[in-house]
Amino acid sequence: MSMVEHQTKPKAIVLLSGGLDSATVLAIARRDGFTPHTLSFDYGQRHRVELRAAKQLAAAFGAEHSVMSFDLRQFGGSALTGDIDVPKDRRESQMANGIPVTYVPARNTIFLSFALGLAEVIGSTDIFVGVNALDYSGYPDCRPEFIAAFQSLANVATKSGVEGHGVTIHAPLIQMTKAQIIAAGTALGVDYSLTSSCYDPSPDGYACGRCDSCQLRRKGFTEAGIPDPTRYRQS
Amino acid sequence: MSMVEHQTKPKAIVLLSGGLDSATVLAIARRDGFTPHTLSFDYGQRHRVELRAAKQLAAAFGAEHSVMSFDLRQFGGSALTGDIDVPKDRRESQMANGIPVTYVPARNTIFLSFALGLAEVIGSTDIFVGVNALDYSGYPDCRPEFIAAFQSLANVATKSGVEGHGVTIHAPLIQMTKAQIIAAGTALGVDYSLTSSCYDPSPDGYACGRCDSCQLRRKGFTEAGIPDPTRYRQS
Repeated sequence: MSMVEHQTKPKAIVLLSGGLDSATVLAIARRDGFTPHTLSFDYGQRHRVELRAAKQLAAAFGAEHSVMSFDLRQFGGSALTGDIDVPKDRRESQMANGIPVTYVPARNTIFLSFALGLAEVIGSTDIFVGVNALDYSGYPDCRPEFIAAFQSLANVATKSGVEGHGVTIHAPLIQMTKAQIIAAGTALGVDYSLTSSCYDPSPDGYACGRCDSCQLRRKGFTEAGIPDPTRYRQS
Repeated sequence: MSMVEHQTKPKAIVLLSGGLDSATVLAIARRDGFTPHTLSFDYGQRHRVELRAAKQLAAAFGAEHSVMSFDLRQFGGSALTGDIDVPKDRRESQMANGIPVTYVPARNTIFLSFALGLAEVIGSTDIFVGVNALDYSGYPDCRPEFIAAFQSLANVATKSGVEGHGVTIHAPLIQMTKAQIIAAGTALGVDYSLTSSCYDPSPDGYACGRCDSCQLRRKGFTEAGIPDPTRYRQS
């Protein structure tokens, strides 16, 4: 791609955790004609290994990559940032039952707020986020009504909102199954071996294969009929 | 106050910058029957001296105090976090004209998002914020429509929203003049000598007296007919 073509594409912020969903969203943002600027968060998550994945994914896409750091452990209240154990081997009926302990209070609100600030600074009016309502009906901030409410907020919270052109929150995965996401990303050339989904990985990046996130990921590859490139640890 | 009385009061998160407005809000939250848990942000602001003020204010009120740190300087885009100069000696007509360079993109959205997370963790459904529409019509995220939009978001973003009891965003200063705020806080016993409003203070905490914030503060004390306890530097 020449520099001129590059410069004419509008910039979009892509929230990039390093997981399967956000990697797919990054490919979708590029397909939709945006120059992605990726944003990751080092928030004290026990699966910090995902940040290495995010960095590698941004590099694979030739995208700018910002990391914002803050420590949500000081608030506590979640298995992902505290000393509550990550649940393992839950059946799908259990996953669908209520808000799981891996829920991090207000996490997506915080992430999107930073995205809104960065968008405004770099002159972007588009934000992509990989929330997915079907697999995680238990997370309040992955639901369509959450995205709609953040969209309304974004339009009054910022300079671009006040000056009339607004901000668009894109959540292209929100109604897709994990298998559909994997199929779409594979068609767009996403290398899922670079992604990390596990909530409780080993320090060298092997997935546990047993947390909710690992189970949903594995099932997605099976249903999509695509070989699962995940490195699972033996246990 | 006995421990028993203390425990029966509902908890509220109070965003506490260390400035005049948020100190007044802290007093109002206590008057309204809440046990305040104060929350401040170390975000790379050039007027970090306000964090000392926040700590002293929280201690003066016997309130719990959390500080969340992140570095908005990496985004840039504001005189408060970057190397743009803080404007001095502007007339009120200039202050009222457009969004000032001291605007920090999405700052109040970010602050309220963290408040939402902390509220959920400590079991609070009330958040107090000292935004004020009259003095700062130039900041998009100080307007009543911003607070209303965040209120709507809070009700779908969190566990307490999903489970039905919701979250209330209190912005008691939003329609008050600076003089009215100072009069209200003085009646509630706020010691304004502990507060810091200047955007460009000296390292030892002396106010410049010339930035927008200093000018609005000084005028507020004059109009309220209350002696201004601010330590201004000689220049």
